[in-house]
Amino acid sequence: MYRTHTCGELRISDVNKQVTLAGWVQRSRKMGGMTFVDLRDRYGITQLVFNEEVNAALCEQANKLGREYVIQVEGTVNERFSKNANIPTGDIEICVSELKVLNSALTPPFTIEDNTDGGDDIRMKYRYLDLRRQAVRKNLELRHKMTIEVRKYLDEQGFIEVETPVLVGSTPEGARDFVVPSRMNPGQFYALPQSPQTLKQLLMVSGFDRYFQIAKCFRDEDLRADRQPEFTQIDCEMSFVEQDDVINLFEGMAKYLFKVIRGVELDGPFLRMPWAEAMKYYGSDKPDLRFGMKFVELMDILKGHGFSVFDNAAYIGGICAEGAAHYTRKQLDALTEYVKRPQIGAKGMVYARVEADGNVKSSVDKFYTQEVLQQMKEAFGAKPGDLILILSGDDAMKTRKQLCELRLEMGNQLGLRDKNKFALLWVVDFPMFEWSDEENRLMAMHHPFTHPKDEDIPLLDTDPAAVRADAYDMVCNGIEVGGGSIRIHDAQLQAKMFEILGFTPERAQEQFGFLMNAFKYGAPPHGGLAYGLDRWVSIFAGLDSIRDCIAFPKNNSGRDVMLDAPGYLDQKQLDELCLKVDIPQE
Amino acid sequence: MYRTHTCGELRISDVNKQVTLAGWVQRSRKMGGMTFVDLRDRYGITQLVFNEEVNAALCEQANKLGREYVIQVEGTVNERFSKNANIPTGDIEICVSELKVLNSALTPPFTIEDNTDGGDDIRMKYRYLDLRRQAVRKNLELRHKMTIEVRKYLDEQGFIEVETPVLVGSTPEGARDFVVPSRMNPGQFYALPQSPQTLKQLLMVSGFDRYFQIAKCFRDEDLRADRQPEFTQIDCEMSFVEQDDVINLFEGMAKYLFKVIRGVELDGPFLRMPWAEAMKYYGSDKPDLRFGMKFVELMDILKGHGFSVFDNAAYIGGICAEGAAHYTRKQLDALTEYVKRPQIGAKGMVYARVEADGNVKSSVDKFYTQEVLQQMKEAFGAKPGDLILILSGDDAMKTRKQLCELRLEMGNQLGLRDKNKFALLWVVDFPMFEWSDEENRLMAMHHPFTHPKDEDIPLLDTDPAAVRADAYDMVCNGIEVGGGSIRIHDAQLQAKMFEILGFTPERAQEQFGFLMNAFKYGAPPHGGLAYGLDRWVSIFAGLDSIRDCIAFPKNNSGRDVMLDAPGYLDQKQLDELCLKVDIPQE
Repeated sequence: MYRTHTCGELRISDVNKQVTLAGWVQRSRKMGGMTFVDLRDRYGITQLVFNEEVNAALCEQANKLGREYVIQVEGTVNERFSKNANIPTGDIEICVSELKVLNSALTPPFTIEDNTDGGDDIRMKYRYLDLRRQAVRKNLELRHKMTIEVRKYLDEQGFIEVETPVLVGSTPEGARDFVVPSRMNPGQFYALPQSPQTLKQLLMVSGFDRYFQIAKCFRDEDLRADRQPEFTQIDCEMSFVEQDDVINLFEGMAKYLFKVIRGVELDGPFLRMPWAEAMKYYGSDKPDLRFGMKFVELMDILKGHGFSVFDNAAYIGGICAEGAAHYTRKQLDALTEYVKRPQIGAKGMVYARVEADGNVKSSVDKFYTQEVLQQMKEAFGAKPGDLILILSGDDAMKTRKQLCELRLEMGNQLGLRDKNKFALLWVVDFPMFEWSDEENRLMAMHHPFTHPKDEDIPLLDTDPAAVRADAYDMVCNGIEVGGGSIRIHDAQLQAKMFEILGFTPERAQEQFGFLMNAFKYGAPPHGGLAYGLDRWVSIFAGLDSIRDCIAFPKNNSGRDVMLDAPGYLDQKQLDELCLKVDIPQE
Repeated sequence: MYRTHTCGELRISDVNKQVTLAGWVQRSRKMGGMTFVDLRDRYGITQLVFNEEVNAALCEQANKLGREYVIQVEGTVNERFSKNANIPTGDIEICVSELKVLNSALTPPFTIEDNTDGGDDIRMKYRYLDLRRQAVRKNLELRHKMTIEVRKYLDEQGFIEVETPVLVGSTPEGARDFVVPSRMNPGQFYALPQSPQTLKQLLMVSGFDRYFQIAKCFRDEDLRADRQPEFTQIDCEMSFVEQDDVINLFEGMAKYLFKVIRGVELDGPFLRMPWAEAMKYYGSDKPDLRFGMKFVELMDILKGHGFSVFDNAAYIGGICAEGAAHYTRKQLDALTEYVKRPQIGAKGMVYARVEADGNVKSSVDKFYTQEVLQQMKEAFGAKPGDLILILSGDDAMKTRKQLCELRLEMGNQLGLRDKNKFALLWVVDFPMFEWSDEENRLMAMHHPFTHPKDEDIPLLDTDPAAVRADAYDMVCNGIEVGGGSIRIHDAQLQAKMFEILGFTPERAQEQFGFLMNAFKYGAPPHGGLAYGLDRWVSIFAGLDSIRDCIAFPKNNSGRDVMLDAPGYLDQKQLDELCLKVDIPQE
C-alpha cells in the first residue's frame, strides 16, 4: 500500500498517528538543522519535516529532493509550531522516519504554481505538467461536477441517456464534416457527427420521449478564438412538447446548475426577447444584459440637418454610457480607432458629452442646434456626466453589429461585465432562413429541421425570408450557451423545407431520406435543445476561453501539440484505405 | 400542452379526472357499438373507449385509426368493467370526448411487439421502428441506468470523469486505427482512439489521482460476431496503487452493480486464477465457471498402450460430463463433428461412458484394459452415469482450446449456462508477451505499457517470453468484462519494453515520445482497468449479442444500414482534403 492518507486529509485530531503519504515535492526549504518539504497531491498539501539532529542521513536525503520528485514517506503526525491557516492541513506536519523516492523528475519547463511563468505554447506542449496546476485542474473538477449534476437533473426528469454513433454519414449541409475512410467499404467514408440532431429525432420517432446525451460533436471549421474541432454538447430532445415546455424545463436546469454549482439563486422566469428586438436594441442575437446601454435609434432626430454622413445613412443609432463624460479626447479617439478596425468596419464615430449644466457638447456641434442635441439627450434619457456614442451606416444590420461591438467594449472599459454577475435570457422568434451571398440562396438559420411558426407557414410560399421559426437560444452574459427548436415532424413539410433550401428531391432523399421516411411511420411532435458544455463550464469557472476547461485542447491550427497530432500515416495504412494523398503544388 | 399524463400513469384513484393523453395506437378492436384503442408511449399502455351510441362521429373517426398513428385524446378516467391485471393501468380506461390525429402512419414493415415478425435485416433498416419495441427499448433503459450507477459509484470513490480527445494521433501498434484526414494540415491524419490508454496515463502524471471516463473507442477490425467498430469502455486509472488496490475497488464496483441493477448479492472475494491455471484447467483465459468439467490431463494414464493417436500426442485431456452417459451414438457423432469443424480443428474425439455397475465403456476399448479405464475414471472422479470426452493433439495449447470449445458446448447442451446465474473471477498473472508468427516477434499480450511482475524483471534480458505481467482480467460467465494492469511509470523500463517489442528507439520516440518524456517529470506509480460497457449491459440484460444494447449498431461489414453509411463523398470534399480514392483493379 502506497499511502494511508492523502495529502489533504490529516488534521489536528490525527496527531500522533503513524501515517504513510505519497505525492509530489511542491517545494522544500532548509532552516537551520531542519528541512521542510511541502508534499502535494490532488487533495492538498502536507508539510513534511526532517530533523538533522534526529536522523542526519535521512535529512541529507531530503535535501537532495528536487521539485516534482515523486516520494513516499512514513512518519508521525505532529502539531505544528507555527500553523498555516491558509490550508486545511495547516495545523499539522509529518515528522518523517522513512523516505522513498518513487520517481525522480527533471526540472519542469515552467513552475507548477497557480501563477506560472510558462507561456501558452510551452504549457500546451507539456499539458500534462500544466494540468498539475491547481488553477487548471479545478476547472476539470468543476466540469466533472457539472456533468454529474446535469445527469442527475435530467435523470430525475425522466430523460434517458442514449449513446448515438460517432461513425455516421456525411451531410454537407451546414458546417464541414470530418470524415473517416472505411477500409471495409473502399472509397466510402463515414463522417463524425456535427451533432446527434437527426439521430435524436429518430429516437423521438422511436418513442423514447425524453432523450439526452453528453455528446462529442465535430466541426471542421477554420478555428476562431474560441472554437475547437471537437466540443461537447448536452444534447436533449422531448416528444409531445411545445416551445414553452422545452424552455421551462431547461430554464429549470439552468437555475438548478447555478444553484448547486455556483450557489446563485436566479429568480423569476428568464426574459424572453424576440430576435428582432435583440437585433434592434443590442445589435446581437446574444445580447449581454449585465448592463444597459440599449441602442437608441436617432434617424428622426439627427437626419436632415446638413451633416451628410447622417443625412445619407440608412441607420443612425447610439448608446449612452452613464457617467463616462470624463472620457478624454485620447480615449475617444482610441474608441473611434476600435470601431474602425477591419474586424468591426465602422467608418467613424460621433460622440456627445452631457455637461454638468445639462448642455450637450458633441463632435458635430456645427451641424446641430442645442435644441436638437437636447432632443437627442431626451431620447437616451441621458444625465449630466453621461457620454453618448453614435454610429451610422448605409446598412442598418451591419451598423447595429458595429454598435454592438462598441457597446461591449464600453461595458468592458466601464467594468460592467462582472464575471460573478449573471444575466440570462431566451432569444426567441428567430428568422427561419437567412440569405447567403456566397451560396446565392436561403440557408437555414438554425438547421433544416426547425419548425416554422404555425402562423408563418403560409409565408413559406410567398415570402420565405419573412418566416419565423419555433427556435430559441439561451444567452448568458452575451454568450450563447444553448439553443434549440421545435422540429418538423411531418414528412411533407420537411420536404418543402429542403426544397426552399435548394435541395432537389433526389438529393434530399439521398441525404435525409432515412429521416423523411421515418416521419411517415408515426412521428410525434417533438423539440429539444443543446447546451454547450464547454461554454457552461467556462462561464461557471470564470474563464476567458473554453480551452481552459478542456483537458487536452487543440490549437488554432487544429493541432494537439503535446501528441503532435495529426501526423503522417504509414504507406501501408494509406494502401489499405485505397487512398492517395495529392497535395496541389502551389 | 399535448398531455396531462403519460400512458403509464393513471390509476383507479384518478377515476373521474379529465385528462389529455398522447401516444401511438398499439391496436384497436371493435366490439359491438364500442371501439377500444390501446394507446402506447414509453411509460405504458392506456385503454381508450369510444362509444357509438354516445358519439357516433367520434367513434367513426376512431375506427379509421391505423396501427402506429400518433393521436391526442381528451376524456374522462373511468373504472374498467373487465380489469387487466397484467398492466399497471389495467383498472381504468379513458372515455374519449375528443380525438386529434397528430400524425398518420404507414403500416410498419414488421409488428411492433416483443415477439416481432421482422427479421434482422429489416429491423436494422428500420431501426427507429425496432426501437419502439419494449424488448429493445428496455435494454437501452438498462444501459442508461447502468451508466448512472457507474458514475455514482466512481464519483463517490473520488474519481473524476475527464473527457479525452477523440481526434488523436495514430499508433499502429495494436489493432488498426480509424483515421481522419486533416484539412488544415494537408496530407496528415488524426486517428480515433482505440482506448484513452496513453491519455489517462498522462492524467496520472498530472496528478489527477483517480480518473474515469465512459469513453467511445474505435477499432478498425474485421468484425466478428460480437464486435462493433465503435464500442464503449468504462475506463479508469488510479495513482499510488498496487494490483490489489485496483482489483478490490473494481470488484466492489461489480458487486455494487450486480446488487443495484440485478438485485444479486455476490458473496466473498472473487476467485483469482493465474492465467496458467485457467489455460490448464479450462483452455481459456476467460473460463466460464458457472459449471465444472475442469480439464483432467491423461498423458500418464493413456499414453503407451498402443493407441497411436494418443501415443504420439503432446497433450491428452478430457472432461467429465456428469450424468451424460445416456448420450446416444448419434449425439456423440454430432459432438465429434462439432470439434472437427475448421473453426475448432480437432482431429477426433474419444468418449467413455461410466456404466451403472461402475465399468467404463469407451470408444477405444480395444487399446485399453478395464484397469486403465478405471484409473482414468478415478482421475475424473467420475460416477456411474457420467460421460467422459477426450481430445488429444500435437500442440498442447491448441488442444486445450479445442477442449475448451467442447466443454462450453457440453455446458450449453446440458443447460449449465444459465443466464440468471453469475460466476465471476479474476484471471491474473498473464504472460507479458506472446509470440506472433505473423509478425515474427514478441507482441504485448495486453499492451506495451503493462508493468512486468517485479520478480520477473530480470527475465526481460534472458527469457522475455517467460515474463509475467501485473495484468488482470475480470471474467463473468466466460466473457471478459474488463481488464487492466499496473502500468510502467519509469521512462527507462518503458524504453526497454519498446525495444523488446521490436521498436527502434527512433520509432518509439516518434510514436510514444510524449509519454516517455512525461515519465521523466515525476510519474507516480499507477494502474487501472477498463470495463466493456456493452458487454456488461448485455450480460445484465441476458442478451446474446452486444448489438441489442446499442441504439444504432453497425452490421458485420461496418455499415449502418439505416443511415446507409459509410457513403461516397462529393469531389469537393475530397479535393479539400487533398485525397484521391484509388481502388486497385482486381
